[in-house]
Parts: sequence; C-alpha cells; structure tokens
Amino acid sequence: MSTLLVGIDADDTLWHSESHFAVTEKQFTDLVRPWIDDVEAKQLLLDQERMNLHVFGYGVKGFTLSMIETAIAVSEGQISLEAISEIVGWGKKMLQHPVELLPEVEDTLIQLTANYRLVLITKGDLFHQESKIAESGVAGLFERVEILTEKSPEQYAAILNRCHVGPDQFVMVGNSLRSDVLPVVELGGQGVHIPFELTWGHEKVDREGLTSKWHHLDKFGELPALLDQIAQTRSNSNEPLTGL
Amino acid sequence: MSTLLVGIDADDTLWHSESHFAVTEKQFTDLVRPWIDDVEAKQLLLDQERMNLHVFGYGVKGFTLSMIETAIAVSEGQISLEAISEIVGWGKKMLQHPVELLPEVEDTLIQLTANYRLVLITKGDLFHQESKIAESGVAGLFERVEILTEKSPEQYAAILNRCHVGPDQFVMVGNSLRSDVLPVVELGGQGVHIPFELTWGHEKVDREGLTSKWHHLDKFGELPALLDQIAQTRSNSNEPLTGL
Repeated sequence: MSTLLVGIDADDTLWHSESHFAVTEKQFTDLVRPWIDDVEAKQLLLDQERMNLHVFGYGVKGFTLSMIETAIAVSEGQISLEAISEIVGWGKKMLQHPVELLPEVEDTLIQLTANYRLVLITKGDLFHQESKIAESGVAGLFERVEILTEKSPEQYAAILNRCHVGPDQFVMVGNSLRSDVLPVVELGGQGVHIPFELTWGHEKVDREGLTSKWHHLDKFGELPALLDQIAQTRSNSNEPLTGL
Repeated sequence: MSTLLVGIDADDTLWHSESHFAVTEKQFTDLVRPWIDDVEAKQLLLDQERMNLHVFGYGVKGFTLSMIETAIAVSEGQISLEAISEIVGWGKKMLQHPVELLPEVEDTLIQLTANYRLVLITKGDLFHQESKIAESGVAGLFERVEILTEKSPEQYAAILNRCHVGPDQFVMVGNSLRSDVLPVVELGGQGVHIPFELTWGHEKVDREGLTSKWHHLDKFGELPALLDQIAQTRSNSNEPLTGL
C-alpha cells in the first residue's frame, strides 16, 4: 500500500452530471425562444446563476430557481405559469435522475483500492450529492467522502489535515481545472486532469498565463498506471516525507 | 475536563430559524388569500414540502420551490408572475438573513467549553448552514461541526464513531424531539430538549405512547448545571466506561 492519498471528484469524473444540465438547458432555450435566441438565453442564464452563487451555492435547486428568474426576466413577464411549473419539474427530474457511472470507473476504482487510500471529494448540494453517492454503488471503495461548498485550497488543506497527510502525499483527480487541479497544485499537491466532453461555463478557466503543471489523462482507466508512476517517483526521490 | 461529548443543534437552539420561516409563511398566506384561507394554505404548503422532502431535502431553496408549486396549484394557474418573483425574493432574503443568536447562547457556550467537548450537529442545506455557522461567531467554540441530511440514529452513531466516544458518553441538546432527542435516546445516549416557541409541522411528534426519557430545560442558560449533574452521576456510577 502506497502512502499516497488519492482524492477523486464525482460529478463528470465518476458519473454524468453536466450532460443532465445540458439537456435541461436545451429545454430552457426552447422554452424562451419566443423572446430570445439560444446563445443569449444561455448567457443570461449563466449570468443569473453566477449572480446567485453567493446566495444559493452550487446545485440543481439553485439552478432551477435561476431558470425561473431568467425565464420571467427575458419574457418580460409574458411566460406562462405552466412554463414555470415545467421548469420546477425539470429540476425534480434532474434531482431524481439515476446515477450513470462513466466508462471504466468501477473497475479502475476497484483496482486502485489495492494500492491507494481513496477519498471522494465533491462540491454542491449535500442532499443531492449524498443521494448520488449512495446510489452509485462505489461509495464503499472510498476511505471517506467529503462534500464541500467550494473547492478552495483551504478546504483541501482541511481534508489533508483530517487524513493526516501532507500535500506531497496527495494527488487530486477530476474534470475541472478550476476546482480539482489548480487549488491542489497551489497547495503543493499533484493534480490529474481528466476532461469531460462538457464543462459548465463557471468552471472554465483561461489557460493563458497558467504556469502551474499538472498531469493530463484522456481516460479514467489510465489512472492506475499514472499513480503507480507518481508513487514510484516519490519513493525514488531523496526528499524526506513531510506527512504526519 | 469531563469525558462527556455534548452535541448541540443549531437552528432554533443556537439561533433563530423557524421564526424566519413563519414570517415568510405569513407573506405566503397573504399572497394566496384571494383563493384560499390561511389555515388551508399552511396545510397545503406543509403537504407540498413533505411530498418534496425526498427530492429536495431540508432547507430554504426547497421551501421556496414548494411555495411556488403550492401558489400555482391553489390559484389554479391564476396567480401573477410578479407573485412568483416575489416568492423567489423571499427565499433569497431568508438565505441572506443575518444570524440572530438566541438569549444566553454565547455566554453559556463559552462556559461549557471549559468542561466539555462540544460538537455542533445540524441538518439541512450545506451552503446555508455553513454560511450561518461562519457568521454566528460561535463556530470556534466547537471541536467539530457536523452537517447532516437527516438526524437518524445511524448518522448520530457515525458521529460518535468519528469522535471516538460511546453513546453513554454522549448528550444531545436541541429544540426538536424528533431530530435531536429521540434518535439519540434510541441509540443509548441522553437527550436534552429545550423547546423553541415555534416548531415546524414536520418536526412535531405525537407524544402519546412515547416511553423514552429525556431531560427538559426551559432555557439554554440552564444547560451547564444539568450537564454537571449528568457528568457527576456518571462518575459516581459503577458502570465501566464503554467509550473507545
């Protein structure tokens, strides 16, 4: 067993999430097309979501309320109450959508548990995240589950503290450079970026000027080989372990 | 320092919460009075909230969505979009409402930290609860903070496990018999009920047939004396400590 602690993101790393948001966003742009074109509708919805983030936090319920606000605003009060009910229904449907694991996830996680301590690190709505984790069938493969309101360097540092490891013993894996990779690299840990085909506007980062280094993988199934390489490099290094 | 671990609920135990819901509920009954009387409006809203609990979980965002659904239903689609916007605004106002500590809370907590390990145990929306805890000014008095989706005996047992104490070393304090007292008594711990003037319909329990025993206090300030008495009784008892 390596001393590496491996943090793994959930939404769009272990299972589909953004694709459900995209389906709903498409329904939303259809709904408001009488008043506004699709590109502008998406932009105004994203603006509304961002404006509401400090009040609602992340998650489907806040997204649903932001859709309602945007629909009323762009229609200048002309949209029907049936449409509002429909939006609430989309939110409920998203919250109850079955969890769909991404390819290679289950087998890869099982393989990783033989050599690494795994911790699931996700952000967003506590109730929805717990529901998905329980339903996923892979929760038992993780030493612990951490659900955060924001993936900041401070929140990652608190997790490392609870797990009694230093940043040099920590590797974080996820689809978001902003949330999964950059804050961990800033802290002195290593980040593994496995992009998903879709990225929410708020999670996009301008790569210009980014000088930090991180690992990049195309597939979740490539993770064991990379981690073995990281663990090997660490054990060959002369640097003393700084973990507690 | 006693070996007692003292769990303390937050909403309506440390600070006002239900009173903010009650103010909003009053605004809601005013809004739908053209179609329905206040008593029935409250009942239908509570029914809707309960129906949505398994999808939304606890918290203001789900409450807001339930108000929107109820308003559309009881008005038979006649309510205005302005009213829907108003409801969303009430939700935001509740989420941003300043934290108001209840009487005697701060001084009592400071006093308790001298003798007991304190853990704040609350349920509901992660983002809103974290915001309130951060704003409250008393977070630093707790050894840890646990935000749950449901206060079940299993969730309490997991906390005791994380804190390395047995149920016989645990006392839980809160305003809700259903959430703070009964599950802990079931687990073999002690419960202290400090009722708040308002109780949400969903938290009300039928006391008929309840044979469990728990402590009752009228004021938060009476807590140190009761805990000292519990700790004294325990240290006088011949029973061995079962804590880990």
